[in-house]
Amino acid sequence: MAEGKNNQILLAARPEGAPRDNDFRIVETPIPAPGPGEMLLRTVYLGLDPIIRLRMNAGSYWPAFELGKPLTGRAVCAVETSNLPGFAPGDLVVTQADWADYMISNGTGPGGAPLPKLDPARGPVTAPLHVLGVTGLTAYVGLLEIGRPQAGETVVVSGASGAVGSMAGQIAKIKGCRVVGIAGGPEKCRYVTDELGFDAAIDYKAENVAKALHAHCPNGIDVYFDNVGGEILDACLAQINMRARIVICGAISQYNSTTGIKGPANYLSLLVHRARMEGMIVFDYAARYPEAQKEMAGWLKAGKLRHREDVVDGLETFPDTLNRLFTGENFGKLVLKV
Amino acid sequence: MAEGKNNQILLAARPEGAPRDNDFRIVETPIPAPGPGEMLLRTVYLGLDPIIRLRMNAGSYWPAFELGKPLTGRAVCAVETSNLPGFAPGDLVVTQADWADYMISNGTGPGGAPLPKLDPARGPVTAPLHVLGVTGLTAYVGLLEIGRPQAGETVVVSGASGAVGSMAGQIAKIKGCRVVGIAGGPEKCRYVTDELGFDAAIDYKAENVAKALHAHCPNGIDVYFDNVGGEILDACLAQINMRARIVICGAISQYNSTTGIKGPANYLSLLVHRARMEGMIVFDYAARYPEAQKEMAGWLKAGKLRHREDVVDGLETFPDTLNRLFTGENFGKLVLKV
Repeated sequence: MAEGKNNQILLAARPEGAPRDNDFRIVETPIPAPGPGEMLLRTVYLGLDPIIRLRMNAGSYWPAFELGKPLTGRAVCAVETSNLPGFAPGDLVVTQADWADYMISNGTGPGGAPLPKLDPARGPVTAPLHVLGVTGLTAYVGLLEIGRPQAGETVVVSGASGAVGSMAGQIAKIKGCRVVGIAGGPEKCRYVTDELGFDAAIDYKAENVAKALHAHCPNGIDVYFDNVGGEILDACLAQINMRARIVICGAISQYNSTTGIKGPANYLSLLVHRARMEGMIVFDYAARYPEAQKEMAGWLKAGKLRHREDVVDGLETFPDTLNRLFTGENFGKLVLKV
Repeated sequence: MAEGKNNQILLAARPEGAPRDNDFRIVETPIPAPGPGEMLLRTVYLGLDPIIRLRMNAGSYWPAFELGKPLTGRAVCAVETSNLPGFAPGDLVVTQADWADYMISNGTGPGGAPLPKLDPARGPVTAPLHVLGVTGLTAYVGLLEIGRPQAGETVVVSGASGAVGSMAGQIAKIKGCRVVGIAGGPEKCRYVTDELGFDAAIDYKAENVAKALHAHCPNGIDVYFDNVGGEILDACLAQINMRARIVICGAISQYNSTTGIKGPANYLSLLVHRARMEGMIVFDYAARYPEAQKEMAGWLKAGKLRHREDVVDGLETFPDTLNRLFTGENFGKLVLKV
């Protein structure tokens, strides 16, 4: 990639299965100049979220990326030059950004709200990409608003070592629940129990998940926070309690599927157990962000929310870096340093 | 079958696919004699519900029938002889009964409540097996408590000409909704629109359901009352509105499956639309039965709830009669006259 240029990653083709190099095109353009009421942002960190893969598909339920246009995602950006009051060079902001070295911004986000400037007192610079950002808020809102766990209940979280799952499980612990995490491999499982403080972890790569759930959830499952879908969702459905709540947050096991999404064959367990499966999208709860972020920042400072980052250097490592999300190779929130 | 004897239908084997004659055994036993505090009931009408098929499977979510024991189901029975105060020969009661000519009862139902005696002022003798019974109450509670339709919303009902679906759709009409029914064949579809008063009907045997839903639900689907599961559930999931409610009441398309239940591949639509899929079982709402039955009886008298029975004569027609539920041959609530 060229220095002194603006490298952008465009979607060249809709991937079949795992994205490959030739599904993307890197183009070099001149660094753009901000007009009146605009500023030039330099991308510092890009958050890599599973949703990015889903948006590469046409006909997904999500707004698809357009062919020939840059990918976009959450990013921490530095202000380079600014024609906007309130934003000065060196300021750090959090925004939906092009997958590119630079972009022009008018200083506002969705709904015309001013872009939030980073508050270093609240945690590491990258925190707005996970703990205090969309993934942390997703865990907070999904667990508390949809899952509604009560102290003493059993909460199961899949993708338990991931950015959302690790927060959902820790918040459930804060709320007094028994928390069982599902993750891939002994290292992640140790992290889930020893560092995050879950009561138990199930290694889906080595264990029979249904049997292990039976062993670790002697009182059944009251809340299942689902990040993965597929067979693990079915295993949990089979062991839910009466009036259980299943939070549908994602289905990472299915996003690369070339044969279509596998629906949960055990969904009739909802009927027998008078249970509920409900989807949530964090953006609906924007009005609650300040309150939630404040509470999360408090827990973070108090050492009650542990987290881990997996920082990879360079735009040019894409799409290999993204693919680590789906092979389970990443460990902690995947962040691309640009 | 012998006269003056008690013919009972026992489960001889767990059926694979559609039940066949040799999955059952008819045994003749003497007519039992009631002891002190008991009465002898003669079965008059047995309600045939899809759940009966599900309970023939082991490892279903439902309490399975035991091999070698009589099947049971909802029935209208006549008191033959009684050693119980409050029950006299000729009285009609509604109870969970053996599939047999006779049974002994202690006069109480679940929770020790006295068996309800039939009130002829409330409608036909068989009404407690459908409109004013479990199926009618299922429609009432499922639609109003889980579906929570608002006037002006679009409600889709599958199994629309059936015992539950026909009631759910008519109640939705009473509540001011646009109601679209899905049924099999032109005769049932005409019944749904012309007699039951739905706004539109879709013939799933002749039409592309997804296209037809698109045409008949120009504002999308707010409530889907699902009696069938399978492909129709998926078609509806793909067209739900934000914050839609899917009431999981049954999955009749799947009960005879020999390859396992097909899960709804489009379940991630719940996520995108912040929607909810929830199961219900009417027995949880027993405290509300009197109020619901009173309201339903009022609608019935006022001509706002039309219904249809499909009465078949003779225990010996089983299991062919039951199988009509799954081939779509029955039209109206299937009742076996004993």
